[in-house]
Amino acid sequence: MLKNDLFLKALRGETVSRPPVWMMRQAGRYLPDFMVLKRKYDFFTRCQTPDLATKITIMPIDQISPDAAILFSDILVVLQAMQIPVEMRDGFGPWIPNPIRSQKDLDQVIIPDINEHLGYVMDAIKLTKIELNESVPLIGFAGSPWTLLCYAVQGQGSKNFEKAKGFCFSQPEAAHDLLQKITDTTILYLKEKIISGVNAVQIFDSWGGLLSPEDYNIFSWPYIQQIITALKDEIPVIVFGKGCWFALNEMGKSGASAIGVDWTCSARNARYLSGGQVTLQGNFDPSRLLLPIPKITEAVYKMINEFGKDRYIVNLGHGILPNIPVDHAKAFVDAVKSYY
Amino acid sequence: MLKNDLFLKALRGETVSRPPVWMMRQAGRYLPDFMVLKRKYDFFTRCQTPDLATKITIMPIDQISPDAAILFSDILVVLQAMQIPVEMRDGFGPWIPNPIRSQKDLDQVIIPDINEHLGYVMDAIKLTKIELNESVPLIGFAGSPWTLLCYAVQGQGSKNFEKAKGFCFSQPEAAHDLLQKITDTTILYLKEKIISGVNAVQIFDSWGGLLSPEDYNIFSWPYIQQIITALKDEIPVIVFGKGCWFALNEMGKSGASAIGVDWTCSARNARYLSGGQVTLQGNFDPSRLLLPIPKITEAVYKMINEFGKDRYIVNLGHGILPNIPVDHAKAFVDAVKSYY
Repeated sequence: MLKNDLFLKALRGETVSRPPVWMMRQAGRYLPDFMVLKRKYDFFTRCQTPDLATKITIMPIDQISPDAAILFSDILVVLQAMQIPVEMRDGFGPWIPNPIRSQKDLDQVIIPDINEHLGYVMDAIKLTKIELNESVPLIGFAGSPWTLLCYAVQGQGSKNFEKAKGFCFSQPEAAHDLLQKITDTTILYLKEKIISGVNAVQIFDSWGGLLSPEDYNIFSWPYIQQIITALKDEIPVIVFGKGCWFALNEMGKSGASAIGVDWTCSARNARYLSGGQVTLQGNFDPSRLLLPIPKITEAVYKMINEFGKDRYIVNLGHGILPNIPVDHAKAFVDAVKSYY
Repeated sequence: MLKNDLFLKALRGETVSRPPVWMMRQAGRYLPDFMVLKRKYDFFTRCQTPDLATKITIMPIDQISPDAAILFSDILVVLQAMQIPVEMRDGFGPWIPNPIRSQKDLDQVIIPDINEHLGYVMDAIKLTKIELNESVPLIGFAGSPWTLLCYAVQGQGSKNFEKAKGFCFSQPEAAHDLLQKITDTTILYLKEKIISGVNAVQIFDSWGGLLSPEDYNIFSWPYIQQIITALKDEIPVIVFGKGCWFALNEMGKSGASAIGVDWTCSARNARYLSGGQVTLQGNFDPSRLLLPIPKITEAVYKMINEFGKDRYIVNLGHGILPNIPVDHAKAFVDAVKSYY
């Protein structure tokens, strides 16, 4: 039995005394202790070593006390498991030496045995659950198929992912092949995470907002919907699409327990567009954590008043930035806890 | 008298046989002739030499025949004139050696004499007008004060412009000082462009979409509104905010003759959010120009049907990408011309 189940209550739409709070990338570079491990171990070593992943996952729980933990990992481990090698280059970001550019490139791509290729994630979940000792729920996550395609095809981070989009527009059949393979893998992956003990899952569609609504409904949304449909009866699913305000209506009808929104979508617009019944999560501009602390507190109260305390999970509208002082991050969490 | 005034008719909301078409960055890197000049002259030499700026402005008119020309220049020349030096580094983008980070840094910033510091732009306009020989209208442009602040403070391009946002949140008075200085300069600059002969002006708020609606109404919109108010009785003003769907309602009431929208906002949403009366401009996803040509034609017809032929200017939702084949760009323009 979880000691703090506020987060799960909000996902179920139950009435709460205050909304729960966590932060995307809460186990990240703004934490000095994280930076110590970052200097010592490379990125994928941190992801692939259960002991390290657990240590990192727990850090923000100890230091800023949010109402949920999210397993330290990366959306790109799924591509690695599918035999699309991914490197992480310091100061540059992800690097895919052999990006997918044709149907032929796709032949090497597999739907992997999850325990064989991603067993280390499951081990990290089990270890983290022991360490958390039922204090707060643990969230598992995956990237959306479209977002993973962006990296697999572009080969690196990008402002517009124009090669990825060009691939979809000029070779739609190959694109759909890849998207379906990622979807199938993601469903297997998240089902294994559920077995390993996560209490909720979040799907990150980080690059969905690069698509027009029409193309979103071709290349992104149908695959996210497949994932939600496959999981929703087993676990609460949160779907977060950066810049995807135009898809909130579909998301609201999808069976997801909650929808993440970014700060360009006001609480009022988000409630209206999502249909008014589903739990919302967000949407503090991460840069706003640079405000003086009393202003952060004020802004958090205002945000809760706008979203309403029920069917709401306080979060940022995207990941916390590396330049945020820890006491500002803590002030964000504390403000929510002092809300009444 | 202009031989082709379709663009101005659309800006005035008059009924037309087909909508006019032009493309943001139409005088850009997808044109092989542009690349020849790019290899020969550095970026600001091209901006600052009226003969070169004119030659580049005319290139797309000769090669793909849109219904309007837009003067080749850059939004950052305004910062240079204000004594904030800007360099353009190949493969890196803009570089500001001494970014604005405090009230003290602001002391060096001037509201310049336009003809002294930006006379070369006026010369380029006059020369271009002669070369165009009344064939199509000429558009002048400026960056929004917020977008220019982003560069002046961040010091370079950025995904989140977190230093610029941090500056606004932690030193709001200095931020407003800088924004007002940029606004005053921009109004003088655009008024001088009008005297020199441009037929319309467009304000680019390229980074407005990084702000929440609340912060947009503090740090971006009031300054854009000042510019529109100062110019709207003299010339048609187009306002384009990338990712600024949430501001369409304000924009619709601002006195601007047209509002640019990007591809994340459907025609229906754009008409609804902007109030339904103002001319709209956009919103083809630039990556979609990688579609096979027959598909481009089809998609353009569909887009015109969705926006409606009146009170509409066909354009991309952002600048054309360097990797677009010229015949695909021409197919986009030709599709509009064949619409009936």
